Amino acid sequence: MAVIALVGALDTKGAEYAFLADRVAALGATPLLIDVGVLGVPALTARIGRDLIAELGGGSLTELRGRGDRNAAMTVMARGAASALSDLVASGDVDGVLAVGGSNAAYVMAEICGRLPFGFPKVLVSTIAAGDTRSYVRETDLTLMYPVVDINGLNRLSRPVLANAAQACVGMATSPYAEPFRSAPLVGVTMFGVTTGCGSSVVRGIEDRGFEALTFHCTGVGGRTLEALIRGGTIQGVADLTTTELADDLVGGVCSAGPDRLTAAAEAGVPQVVSVGALDMVNFYETVPPEFSGRLLHPHNPAVTLMRTTAAECAELGRGIAARLNPSIAPAAVLFPHRGLSQLSTPGGVFHDPAADDALYQALRDGLRPGIDLHDFDTDINDPAVSATAVDLLATWLEKETP
Amino acid sequence: MAVIALVGALDTKGAEYAFLADRVAALGATPLLIDVGVLGVPALTARIGRDLIAELGGGSLTELRGRGDRNAAMTVMARGAASALSDLVASGDVDGVLAVGGSNAAYVMAEICGRLPFGFPKVLVSTIAAGDTRSYVRETDLTLMYPVVDINGLNRLSRPVLANAAQACVGMATSPYAEPFRSAPLVGVTMFGVTTGCGSSVVRGIEDRGFEALTFHCTGVGGRTLEALIRGGTIQGVADLTTTELADDLVGGVCSAGPDRLTAAAEAGVPQVVSVGALDMVNFYETVPPEFSGRLLHPHNPAVTLMRTTAAECAELGRGIAARLNPSIAPAAVLFPHRGLSQLSTPGGVFHDPAADDALYQALRDGLRPGIDLHDFDTDINDPAVSATAVDLLATWLEKETP
Repeated sequence: MAVIALVGALDTKGAEYAFLADRVAALGATPLLIDVGVLGVPALTARIGRDLIAELGGGSLTELRGRGDRNAAMTVMARGAASALSDLVASGDVDGVLAVGGSNAAYVMAEICGRLPFGFPKVLVSTIAAGDTRSYVRETDLTLMYPVVDINGLNRLSRPVLANAAQACVGMATSPYAEPFRSAPLVGVTMFGVTTGCGSSVVRGIEDRGFEALTFHCTGVGGRTLEALIRGGTIQGVADLTTTELADDLVGGVCSAGPDRLTAAAEAGVPQVVSVGALDMVNFYETVPPEFSGRLLHPHNPAVTLMRTTAAECAELGRGIAARLNPSIAPAAVLFPHRGLSQLSTPGGVFHDPAADDALYQALRDGLRPGIDLHDFDTDINDPAVSATAVDLLATWLEKETP
Repeated sequence: MAVIALVGALDTKGAEYAFLADRVAALGATPLLIDVGVLGVPALTARIGRDLIAELGGGSLTELRGRGDRNAAMTVMARGAASALSDLVASGDVDGVLAVGGSNAAYVMAEICGRLPFGFPKVLVSTIAAGDTRSYVRETDLTLMYPVVDINGLNRLSRPVLANAAQACVGMATSPYAEPFRSAPLVGVTMFGVTTGCGSSVVRGIEDRGFEALTFHCTGVGGRTLEALIRGGTIQGVADLTTTELADDLVGGVCSAGPDRLTAAAEAGVPQVVSVGALDMVNFYETVPPEFSGRLLHPHNPAVTLMRTTAAECAELGRGIAARLNPSIAPAAVLFPHRGLSQLSTPGGVFHDPAADDALYQALRDGLRPGIDLHDFDTDINDPAVSATAVDLLATWLEKETP
C-alpha cells in the first residue's frame, strides 16, 4: 500500500490537507501528514510535527515564533521538511509526496524535491504553476497542477483539483514503473550549435562503445541539469567539451549556468573529459548591454548576438577551469583545440583570435595540477581527432570501473 | 475502464507515444492515439488520423504540407485536435488526455485544454514546465510534468518520466472524485485592494442568501480566469463591481485581462451586476512609461505606481462597458457610485476627480440600451448601499432561475 507524504501548513491549510488525506485513504493509500506550519494551531494531527521539522531544519519552533521573521521561519521549516522526506524516501517509508498552497508551499516543495530521487512522485498544486516556474521546478521532475483559483478553503473548484492531485500522486506511487536494469554507464555530453560536430561524434562514439549518452544543450538550463544529475548519481561519466556557460557566467551573458557549473563531477568522483568548446563567445539576446559597445559582436540570428571573449577573460576562464578540476577525485583530462574553440573561431572565422585562445591555453597549462593531462590538438574543436580522444579516455576510465 | 487520449506527432515522437500507449494499457486503461503530425511517416497507427484532424481544424493535410508553413500547420492541427477532444469528452468516450513534447506539443495541448471541462484530467510532459508557463496553462487546470531533459527518444531518464505521466493520468481518470451535487448557484465576485470593502460585503451578502461566492483579484489573471469559468459554465452569476482591468487594457497598464474582459457573461447568458470599481486607476510597476510623465501618479507601494484615468479615458471606458453589456441575453445592471470609484477617489482622495467620474457616467447613461438599468448612488463604491443593491439584484435574478 503506497504511503503519500502530505507536507503543508496544517494551521492555515488544515481543511485542504484533511480533504487530501481523506482522498488518499479513499484510494487505498496511506496519508502521512507532515506539518510545516509555525504560528497557528494545527487543525490536524501530524505524523511528523512542526517541532521535529524545525529541529531537523536546524532551528527551534519557539525561537522561530519569537523572531517573527517569516522568511527565516520558512527557510528552516523547508530545510527540515527536506531532511525528513529525504530520510523517509531513503528508508522506503514513503512512495510519493504531495503539497498544496501558494509560493510558500512551492518553496518548501522545491527544497524537498531537490533532495529526492529522479522518478519519485512529486506533486504540487499551486497557482505558481501559471507564471515563471523556474525557481520552483529547478532541475527536478516536479509535477505541477494549476488550480485556476487560489487554494483558500474547500469549494466546488478546489475540491476537484485537490482530488485530482491525490489521484495523480497515488497513481504514480502505486506499483510504479521499474526501469529495466542497465549496467552500461550513462555519459553526459555537452554541446552548442557551434560545437554540434564535436558533440554529435562524441555521442556516436560513446554509443559505439556500448555506453548510453545523454546530451545537454548549453543554454544555462542544460548545464544546471547536467550538474544536478551528476550530483544525484544518475550520470557516471562526462564528456564536457562545451563549457561555454562559464564564459556567460564570468562576463554576464544570458546562458550562465551559475558559478557551480563544472564542479559536480569533480566533487562526486565522476570521470570527466573537459574542453573549451564555445569559450570564444558570450551570448546575448537582440541587444548587448552598453558597457560592451566597443567589443567584437556577431549577430547569430535575429534573436541572439554573440560577443567574442577577450584574452583577459580567456585567461580568467582558464584559471577557473583549473580551479574547478584540480580537486577531482576521479580521472579528469582537458582537451585543447588550438585552431578554434567553436565553428566561429577557426582560421578566417569572425571570432578567430589566436592570442585570446592562447591566453586560455596558458592559464590551463599553468593552473592544472599534475595528473590532469592537457591534450593539445592542432585542429578546431569539431575535428574528429578531439571527439575520438574524448571517447577513448572516457571508455578507458569507465571500463576500468565497470565490473 | 478509463480511456486515455494520447495526442501527439506520431512521426517525430513515435517511440515516446508507443511507450505511453504500452504503459497506459499495462495499467488496465485504454490508449486512444490521436496523430497531429504533418510531415513525417507515422510510426504508429492512430485511432484518429492526421487527415481527419486537419479537416476538423479547417484545413487539409495535403494543403498544409504544400504550404510548408510550420506555424500555420500547427494552428490547424491544434484546432482540429481541440475539436476532436471536445467531442470525445462531451460524448463520454475519453476520460483523460496526455501529451508529450516541446513547445509545439504544449501549444496543441493548450488549445485542447481550453475546450475541456474543469476537473477533466489533462497531463502535459514538456520542458516548457520550467519557464514562463502562462501562455500554455492559460486558465485551465493543466497538470505539467517537467522531464528534466528534452524528450527526444527513449532512454533511462525519459522512460520513468513518461511512465509517471501515464500513471498520473490513468490515476486521475480512474473512478474520479465526484463533487457532491450543489444546487446553489456559484457567483463570481471581483475585487481589488482599493475596493475590498465592496467585494467583501458582496461575498457576505451572497453567502447569506445561500449562494456560493468565488472571488477574483483583478490583476489580469483574475479577470481572465473569471471570464474562462463563466464561458465554461462553472459560474451562474457575476457581481463584477471591480472592472478596473478594462482601464489597464485601454491605457496600457500591467493589470490588463485582455480586450475580452466583461464579455463572457453577456455572451453566455449569465446574469451580472456590473460597476466601475477602480476605473479611476491604471496600474504600473515601479516605473511609469515616459509618455505618462505629466499625469497624476500615486505610488501605491514600492512595487506599484497608480495613474489616475482622465475624463477622456473614462468616457471611452463607459462606452466600452455599454458596448460589452448591450448584447446581454441575461439580466444585467450597472451600479454607479458618484462619490468615488475606489478608496482613492472619494472626496479628498488623491484621485478625486468628479469631472472624470462624470464623463464615465455620461458615457454609460448614453450608451446602455434600455433594459440595462443604471443605478445611481450618492456614495463611494465601498458603501454598503452599493453591495446591498448588487446582492439584491443577483438574488432576484438567480432565485427566479433556480427551480
